[in-house]
Amino acid sequence: MRWAPDARGRLERAAIELFAEQGYAATTVPQITARAGLTTRTFFRHFADKREVVFGGDEIPENAARLILAAPSGLAPMAVLRTVLHRVSAEFFASDRAETGAWRAMILANDELRDRDARKRADMVRASRAAFLERGQPPLEATVLAELGVLAFQVALDEWAAGSDDRSMDAVVDEVLATIARQAQDRAER
Amino acid sequence: MRWAPDARGRLERAAIELFAEQGYAATTVPQITARAGLTTRTFFRHFADKREVVFGGDEIPENAARLILAAPSGLAPMAVLRTVLHRVSAEFFASDRAETGAWRAMILANDELRDRDARKRADMVRASRAAFLERGQPPLEATVLAELGVLAFQVALDEWAAGSDDRSMDAVVDEVLATIARQAQDRAER
Repeated sequence: MRWAPDARGRLERAAIELFAEQGYAATTVPQITARAGLTTRTFFRHFADKREVVFGGDEIPENAARLILAAPSGLAPMAVLRTVLHRVSAEFFASDRAETGAWRAMILANDELRDRDARKRADMVRASRAAFLERGQPPLEATVLAELGVLAFQVALDEWAAGSDDRSMDAVVDEVLATIARQAQDRAER
Repeated sequence: MRWAPDARGRLERAAIELFAEQGYAATTVPQITARAGLTTRTFFRHFADKREVVFGGDEIPENAARLILAAPSGLAPMAVLRTVLHRVSAEFFASDRAETGAWRAMILANDELRDRDARKRADMVRASRAAFLERGQPPLEATVLAELGVLAFQVALDEWAAGSDDRSMDAVVDEVLATIARQAQDRAER
């Protein structure tokens, strides 16, 4: 989420700053556009409403599906997920952990944003499932893999954003995937 | 969801019938209470609004947490999940698959209900995570187990409700848990 010279990036940056300074509920679209030095008309060309600035547009599920389809065909499913999650973390979360942490904390503190976040997660599962079906996985396997991938992404993101050590998002992704593999082992006794 | 002589059960039953007959959006609270032979005042003693009839009250996350805590202490985590999910399916879904299928289809077809369903899922993860922490799991393990449990429940419920064979919900739960265990294995090639 680095500062970008384009209108969209400026609006996102201004919104995140204002949400951090005065809270999500107290921030209005005109305040965001004033801070960004742009018009409200420009705002609504990029985002349906204030809430959508927080969620970065509708292209994320499609991007996830595209990355799943682009992974080498010989990879085992969990290796596909690892490859995709490393790509995603490089694209989106390489920059600023404190900013990502503030953004996640804001979402988790607000019921309306939590609902939207939960729906976004469901949309990501849906898009990822379609991609795994296209890779030839049977329906139940495709559903489980899509759910595991989105689960790993969300858990890793929250772990990384809340953490105080200097691990990379990739290291956290690997730890979460290893924890899933270990915990999901099906045996009777611990 | 068998017919129950109590007010709450009668209201749920009337609501589900009306939602099936004329759709969720077109159904009003007075229609529900007229069908149930009860007053709107009684309705609002049991449910905050029309939407909450669909989701069966707020006690489900607490029930899940209680069942996790009640599982024998020597069980491996996935065996805890299996035990809990068998108990849940016996309590809630032993009766009528067609009715459950209609109910799930209604939720998935309506954005407002999908949002609420997604939030309920997040609440179940939260409550289950607290229970796994109380069972002595470290934080990341507790998060992953709670997510896997809720994932398995949701996937099994949708699989079972949409299926046309006569498998029990327990058999579907076992298949979903086995699929998770198999898919989550961490290896490089398939």
